Amino acid sequence: MLNKILPIWAKSYQKSWLSGDLIAGLIVTVMLIPQSLAYAMLAGLPPEVGIYASILPLIAYALFGSSMTLAVGPVAVVSLMTANALQSLAMQGTPEYVALAMLLALISGVMLVIFGLLRFGVLSNLLSHPVISGFITGSALVITIGQIKPLLGLSFKADGALHNLTGIVTHLSEANLTTAAIGISALLALWLSRTLLKGIIAKLAPMFVVIIATAVTAYYQLAQQVGVKIVGTVPAGLPSLHLAAPTATQLSNLWLPALLISLVGLVESVSVARSLAQKRKQRIDANKELLGLGAANVASALSGGYPVTGGFARSGVNFSAGANTPLAGVISAILMSIVLLGMTGWFYHLPQTVLAATIIIAVITLVDFSVLKHAWHFDRTDSFAFLATMIGVLILGVEEGIVLGVVLSLASMIFKTSQPHIAVVGRVAGTEHFRNVERHQVETAPHLLALRIDENIYFGNAAVVELTIQEALQKQPLTTNLLLIMSAVNRIDYTGLEMLTDLQDDLKSRGIKLCLAEVKGPVLDALTHSALPLQLEQCIYLSTHEAFLALS
Amino acid sequence: MLNKILPIWAKSYQKSWLSGDLIAGLIVTVMLIPQSLAYAMLAGLPPEVGIYASILPLIAYALFGSSMTLAVGPVAVVSLMTANALQSLAMQGTPEYVALAMLLALISGVMLVIFGLLRFGVLSNLLSHPVISGFITGSALVITIGQIKPLLGLSFKADGALHNLTGIVTHLSEANLTTAAIGISALLALWLSRTLLKGIIAKLAPMFVVIIATAVTAYYQLAQQVGVKIVGTVPAGLPSLHLAAPTATQLSNLWLPALLISLVGLVESVSVARSLAQKRKQRIDANKELLGLGAANVASALSGGYPVTGGFARSGVNFSAGANTPLAGVISAILMSIVLLGMTGWFYHLPQTVLAATIIIAVITLVDFSVLKHAWHFDRTDSFAFLATMIGVLILGVEEGIVLGVVLSLASMIFKTSQPHIAVVGRVAGTEHFRNVERHQVETAPHLLALRIDENIYFGNAAVVELTIQEALQKQPLTTNLLLIMSAVNRIDYTGLEMLTDLQDDLKSRGIKLCLAEVKGPVLDALTHSALPLQLEQCIYLSTHEAFLALS
Repeated sequence: MLNKILPIWAKSYQKSWLSGDLIAGLIVTVMLIPQSLAYAMLAGLPPEVGIYASILPLIAYALFGSSMTLAVGPVAVVSLMTANALQSLAMQGTPEYVALAMLLALISGVMLVIFGLLRFGVLSNLLSHPVISGFITGSALVITIGQIKPLLGLSFKADGALHNLTGIVTHLSEANLTTAAIGISALLALWLSRTLLKGIIAKLAPMFVVIIATAVTAYYQLAQQVGVKIVGTVPAGLPSLHLAAPTATQLSNLWLPALLISLVGLVESVSVARSLAQKRKQRIDANKELLGLGAANVASALSGGYPVTGGFARSGVNFSAGANTPLAGVISAILMSIVLLGMTGWFYHLPQTVLAATIIIAVITLVDFSVLKHAWHFDRTDSFAFLATMIGVLILGVEEGIVLGVVLSLASMIFKTSQPHIAVVGRVAGTEHFRNVERHQVETAPHLLALRIDENIYFGNAAVVELTIQEALQKQPLTTNLLLIMSAVNRIDYTGLEMLTDLQDDLKSRGIKLCLAEVKGPVLDALTHSALPLQLEQCIYLSTHEAFLALS
Repeated sequence: MLNKILPIWAKSYQKSWLSGDLIAGLIVTVMLIPQSLAYAMLAGLPPEVGIYASILPLIAYALFGSSMTLAVGPVAVVSLMTANALQSLAMQGTPEYVALAMLLALISGVMLVIFGLLRFGVLSNLLSHPVISGFITGSALVITIGQIKPLLGLSFKADGALHNLTGIVTHLSEANLTTAAIGISALLALWLSRTLLKGIIAKLAPMFVVIIATAVTAYYQLAQQVGVKIVGTVPAGLPSLHLAAPTATQLSNLWLPALLISLVGLVESVSVARSLAQKRKQRIDANKELLGLGAANVASALSGGYPVTGGFARSGVNFSAGANTPLAGVISAILMSIVLLGMTGWFYHLPQTVLAATIIIAVITLVDFSVLKHAWHFDRTDSFAFLATMIGVLILGVEEGIVLGVVLSLASMIFKTSQPHIAVVGRVAGTEHFRNVERHQVETAPHLLALRIDENIYFGNAAVVELTIQEALQKQPLTTNLLLIMSAVNRIDYTGLEMLTDLQDDLKSRGIKLCLAEVKGPVLDALTHSALPLQLEQCIYLSTHEAFLALS
């Protein structure tokens, strides 16, 4: 029985893997403690919600996910998206707000599971790398700008990255100097420990920063004396399990943000998991990933948490600390439970400004303009997609940014394939090779026009393909045989088929015969189910050479 | 000076074209008079707004458009979209509602002009034929169902096609019998005249129906006696010209519907204009079409009208009546002005039920399930796209339907190209031809794995392409040379390039050499701007044969 539930890695678990998993589990926990509190703050939730989201989801992912090294839990971008989704629905920190965050995780989890069962793993390919990179960079900038407020002890209200930025400048004089001093010191310490230290010391440094800042704040009673904002009471004890179904109104408010969070979570997890798996020659199954992340989110909703996914930074640390299997995650979950049972009192005097510093240090490494630089010379459209998505996130908002990114990814593909390359070809003398007449010295026949179509024919370019063919015919008015070389046409859709049928009718009325050569198997299979091949029966050639001999 | 403004057709106008243009202009006007009143009613606007939208826009299109035979003006689908866009913003028929309809035309017109200047004509290819057909069929059904209410003299309130349909059944006993009798008689007369009569008589028949119904209603005073709803007072005189800029709130309410109206208007116009132009070997320039339709909509907004575009039915009549140039449209505009100046009183007793019959007869011909039938055996995805769009329009609404259609068009393409065909190939003995090892008897070399990739490599399939390559390598563990045959790869985007670079790094570490053959010119050009070709320098072959000889 147990054997059926257990995932493959657990069934074939080897003793030699244990030390790696134990050490990685411990190191990730050290990182997870401040991050879970910080990301909950970023999402507008009480700190314990971040810890709840770091226990059961890790165990659920270990059971259903496909990555051996992905560290699941609260992450920065999804926390930002949660805050955005709920901002107009309830006041931050209220029980109503917490309940909505749980529902958001539930809806997102159920969506992911359904997508997984439908084998919609292809969704993880919906975004191009430039768009993902632009989205992550934009979100990291939005988060960084947003965290400057708690870092400096400012508390004005503002919507959006731009208003926050101008607000910081105009309200700078209201900053709490003690808060700012602690925050900036923490920021510097975290940054220096990351750049100067190496190995296990670098990974433990954030814990020391947290301990020192908490001790100082507690000793000098900085909260009461000068108003440094602290975490305060974090309720001890494991979360109670319960699941509430959303009402129709809640569902209609939350389905779109949940869908976008699911999409972003999937894309983020799959890209991290893939790049780590590659280094160890392992494979990631996007469909299993959907199930794993879906189960993690349902588990989060069940245990008082909020939307989770696999994060960049912790997964990298988990990998380099030697994690061999998701047991590392299970160990983190156990350690986080122990924290929750007995150590929550220790966070009482932890200053919020240190959490802000933790967030800034975590997300600033995500800001990455290398795609812009590299893509610039290779493909200007991809650079533009990066910039537009990043600026979209900064100016319009994080949800609008991701929608813009999807639209841009798809639109750029339509745009690129909408003007296909179509070459008039002739035979290289004495050979069976055919080449573009404009690039090579080749033989042509006066009554035969041979065109090679270098693109799939589909709705995005069917009209342009026909126009180009007609223009080529106008330039060669003696043509009686038109040969379309289909070696680079991998697909024809219904719109493309209609175009070919119309073209055939038109050519017939003008006494021109339409022939095809080098039609690929899948295209030929599709054509046999249409009326077109009957009309072309006598005129489909295996090779261009054969067609050239017969038609010229 | 005048010469600069005049379009090409006007500069080279030939006397022999005049009679065709005059007759077509006259016949289209006969059709346009009841349709302009009817479509204004469908859009929830006073009847004169329909006439205003049939004057200046036709002249603007004649100056800037590219089609010789497109009949621009109020059309059914755009009228339905106008009513949908404004339903939650103002009460139908109020001055506020009319002002919003003008703003909708203005915003849509400005968008179209901007798209035209940016040369975004490719937008007209954003929808596949099955999606367009599903959208038009769905909209025609929604309109038909909606018009049954005025046809029978019913006046209950209901949102959406389904509620309208159930409402008609439950409220049937409240129908105004005289209204229903007139409406159904008109419907029958229009339908019979269309199916039984031919030529000019068939085209004039609708006018007789209108005249007879109006005369009967006026003679028996049916409006006062039994409550038959009539058109009532239509203000005489040309519209005053003025332009109001939208406020920020109006802009934020109207930009999305305006964008969708622009898109639908463009797609409808370009497909009608293209199919008509094809018959006379003329060409449509989608960029000029954007300018022409944009100018027409700005002109409509300027003169008290609402969004316009090129319609199916009137354009077909214009074409078959012998229109040679947009002068036919100018003549219609002049005749409509004369109607507006002196004949509006004639419409006072025209029963609204006859307008409903006019609309139903006009849109019912747009219902077309042939795509569903034809695409079923050719490409199931395209049939599904037709059905989903049609049902989307019927159940979710017209705006949601068109958005769903765009998403489905694009998603189906991603879906189809996300699992590319990748074949292991070998040499047909004694030749220079290479074929799939699974389909043909071919020679292979033990240390060489030759793969032909039958799809563009881009973000939608880069991960799958890599996975497939790695799996093929696992099956041939002796491989030291990997040859990718790129004859069917027309494009590589940045995500695809990153994948190839990562793959190259990985193979290098395993002592496997990556080579390419038959790389297309545009792909090679793009690769030279990346870091990859330097690493491949010694290993790009013109032909597969050459590569096979060198590597095996």
